[in-house]
Amino acid sequence: MNITIKQKYQEYVIQMQKIADLGAAASVLSWDNEVNIPSGSHNLRAKQLATLSGVIHGLTTDKKFGKLLRDLAKEDLPLKHRRNIAFSLKEYDKNFKFSQEFVVKKTMAIAEAFHAWSEAKTKADFTIFAPSLDKLLAIVREEVRIVGYEHHPYDTMLDNYEPELTVTKLDKIFGQVKSQLVPFIQQIKPQGDKKLLHQHFPKDKQWAFGLDLLKSIGFNFEQGRQDISSHPFTISFGSEDVRLTTRVDEQDFANMTWSCIHEGGHGMYEQGLPAKEYGLPSGTYASLAIHESQSRLWENNIGRSKFFWQYHYPRLKKIFPAQFQGTSLQQFYLALNIVKKNHIRTEADELHYHLHVLIRYEIEKEILSSSIKAKDIKELWNEHYKNYVGVKIKNDREGILQDVHWSHGSFGYFPTYSLGSFYAAQFFAKIKSIHTDVENKIAKGDYSQVHTWLKDNIYKHGRTYTAEELCKKATGSGLDFGYFMSYVERKYGG
Amino acid sequence: MNITIKQKYQEYVIQMQKIADLGAAASVLSWDNEVNIPSGSHNLRAKQLATLSGVIHGLTTDKKFGKLLRDLAKEDLPLKHRRNIAFSLKEYDKNFKFSQEFVVKKTMAIAEAFHAWSEAKTKADFTIFAPSLDKLLAIVREEVRIVGYEHHPYDTMLDNYEPELTVTKLDKIFGQVKSQLVPFIQQIKPQGDKKLLHQHFPKDKQWAFGLDLLKSIGFNFEQGRQDISSHPFTISFGSEDVRLTTRVDEQDFANMTWSCIHEGGHGMYEQGLPAKEYGLPSGTYASLAIHESQSRLWENNIGRSKFFWQYHYPRLKKIFPAQFQGTSLQQFYLALNIVKKNHIRTEADELHYHLHVLIRYEIEKEILSSSIKAKDIKELWNEHYKNYVGVKIKNDREGILQDVHWSHGSFGYFPTYSLGSFYAAQFFAKIKSIHTDVENKIAKGDYSQVHTWLKDNIYKHGRTYTAEELCKKATGSGLDFGYFMSYVERKYGG
Repeated sequence: MNITIKQKYQEYVIQMQKIADLGAAASVLSWDNEVNIPSGSHNLRAKQLATLSGVIHGLTTDKKFGKLLRDLAKEDLPLKHRRNIAFSLKEYDKNFKFSQEFVVKKTMAIAEAFHAWSEAKTKADFTIFAPSLDKLLAIVREEVRIVGYEHHPYDTMLDNYEPELTVTKLDKIFGQVKSQLVPFIQQIKPQGDKKLLHQHFPKDKQWAFGLDLLKSIGFNFEQGRQDISSHPFTISFGSEDVRLTTRVDEQDFANMTWSCIHEGGHGMYEQGLPAKEYGLPSGTYASLAIHESQSRLWENNIGRSKFFWQYHYPRLKKIFPAQFQGTSLQQFYLALNIVKKNHIRTEADELHYHLHVLIRYEIEKEILSSSIKAKDIKELWNEHYKNYVGVKIKNDREGILQDVHWSHGSFGYFPTYSLGSFYAAQFFAKIKSIHTDVENKIAKGDYSQVHTWLKDNIYKHGRTYTAEELCKKATGSGLDFGYFMSYVERKYGG
Repeated sequence: MNITIKQKYQEYVIQMQKIADLGAAASVLSWDNEVNIPSGSHNLRAKQLATLSGVIHGLTTDKKFGKLLRDLAKEDLPLKHRRNIAFSLKEYDKNFKFSQEFVVKKTMAIAEAFHAWSEAKTKADFTIFAPSLDKLLAIVREEVRIVGYEHHPYDTMLDNYEPELTVTKLDKIFGQVKSQLVPFIQQIKPQGDKKLLHQHFPKDKQWAFGLDLLKSIGFNFEQGRQDISSHPFTISFGSEDVRLTTRVDEQDFANMTWSCIHEGGHGMYEQGLPAKEYGLPSGTYASLAIHESQSRLWENNIGRSKFFWQYHYPRLKKIFPAQFQGTSLQQFYLALNIVKKNHIRTEADELHYHLHVLIRYEIEKEILSSSIKAKDIKELWNEHYKNYVGVKIKNDREGILQDVHWSHGSFGYFPTYSLGSFYAAQFFAKIKSIHTDVENKIAKGDYSQVHTWLKDNIYKHGRTYTAEELCKKATGSGLDFGYFMSYVERKYGG
């Protein structure tokens, strides 16, 4: 790069880091809102967050910044720089298409919908949420008209969460879910004793064990922490300060334990992103599916394996000697891998989980390509659960109201959950093909091979590559559902 | 106000609330930095805070905003509005006098000085801090030249913390400290057993007792919370979200207990400020001295009184039965009011405390009116401690390095500490003159008379009046040191 271009690129970096600093400030306020805020302070905080968002929006749609991006996009930059500019310009152009009125209208509709959804869920009555949902659907359809699309209107929404993901790609993958995973699940025989993880596990001891697990798998507490919130999440203020949250259920050992490992996977990805690329696409996660691949790899491929618990189960027994007295590792392992159909996505096992996502995918595709109304969506929901999962929805709380996403206007998010698991299976297969002793190492509490591979193949690239490119670079091929099927066949077959 | 003026005033309010929202965001980041931040994340946070400060500085020095203030200042507004505009314009004009270069230079010098001070204090070696202090002194003297002054250069610095406070006023008050308080202290006979509060008091029990005290005196936990930090402080994100911090020393019962009551007094003031005036001078604290009057009134006039402990001591004995077995209320009361000369301001009793402040006042006055150098300031320090307090400074850590304020560039802050105690005595005397049974009520755990008086006379006015005006309105006269002398004579005399 010549000096003028270098200077221009530096201007770009400065503006991006300014936006990142303010975005991090908003994240601290959001984190505090979930973790610490006194009960009577939510309105004040909402106002402060709105002001901060307004300032950030002003910076991200600044016309001078737009011109800078367009100038730089014309130059012959090195790959990483080129990708940063291309991604930032794409975001800029998208933001710029939305009028201030549209943004405010959407924000208001979401606030209203979230409120209605909360009440509706409490009362298990979808009719309370339906009018707000219809309003939100109209806005989402308008969003697609504003942004435009090439093949399928749903592609526009998918791209918000997973750049370059399309209906064509997802139809292929969920087609395999239907043709391969569904029949596979049907022939699995019930095993494992559910009661084993549903004894009394005192809060303090669970908390200590969860922290111990996180330290053991490699979450860095010098650049992060864990707290309690009502729903577990991971939030990053930069790779040097990553916060996890969890919750403790004294009657359910699984609740906190695998939330720790899951969020720990997200957190280690955030901590592993290159700090010197702070604020730039090259310093942020590749996509939501890749993010989810990191949590699922640790939660399921590692955290629900027998080799993982070969190391941790003896330690666990020391903390809860009465609860696990006389229980073998094999019995414990079976208990944490029970396969059983149910109504609730977040409580599903790692196989049924994808049927839950499949249902949401089919419904969202329908929403974006038709003018279907809320009340018909509910019918569709209940029908799909009967056909795909084989359960009858007893009430709306356990049915269409179970997830918050739609009330947030998040249509296109769910598919990334399944893709995350499928990428995770492919990544772990690759790690095993390189390090044939990786399971033995993990059984000794040594995760160094996993960490090194993830750092070199996932973490360090940030968003320089799309999810598909990253997967090809890392494993030799694009996403292949076959790896997930091999993983589950080996684990649950025969 | 006619419609045009009303609209202009509304524009002013919107801009002020935007600034307040971003200021609150910065406060959340600062609070989190003290309370939660992982050890390796301070640099990242400092950068994020600097960006946020830059954005706020841009808004507070915006030329359109300046014109709006100047336009409104010409109008005949109601008192509260007029005072808001006058105060905001004064701040605007002051901010505007500083070039960006000067602000950056000062910020850098403070960062360097704070770093040097921390190291110097750890090593008890003033020579490490002295060069940074000299640099900072030059900058502070430059600040005075930029802003200008009428009578005394120190007045400019005092006005930063306590609007309209001057050397003339302080010379009078500290003259009384020297002529009345100093001889009074000298004739106090030692009483009380120091060891009583220096037994082992387990952390969890102290924490529970501190929260209980805060609830009892009226701190609202629905709009606030308390956490642990290395130095106790109060911070407000708006009157609906006020955070206190404290620390626990298991070998010193006094450390946490009176920090809770002290910060609780600050916190109740912040919670009592009118929420509908959020972001405006009328919604903020009157001055630092008035703020300190609120903490000292609760900490000392109430919290170190026998009537306060008539209610709480029996409760305390239930929590620490072994520690206080056979100790009467009178013995306990004497132990928490021991008068004894010492080196450290923050550990001083409520009488000697003002000698510590007097020394800093005299030195700061000298600093601003001469070109005295760091090394001579140290000589002055040690001399003053010998003359005023009667102690020999053994090392710099216990001497000139004990307080952080100078390394922050805060010259003019210390006097507000003493003024706070003197205002508190005057306010409490007024409350007692109206409610002659207030001590009996407090002895029953009923603080309603105190709360009502503070709400009506202090809290609700925000910054509409200066400290002196407020004091006159509330008590009938300006600050009168005589009230403090009467309070201590009644308590410690004869």
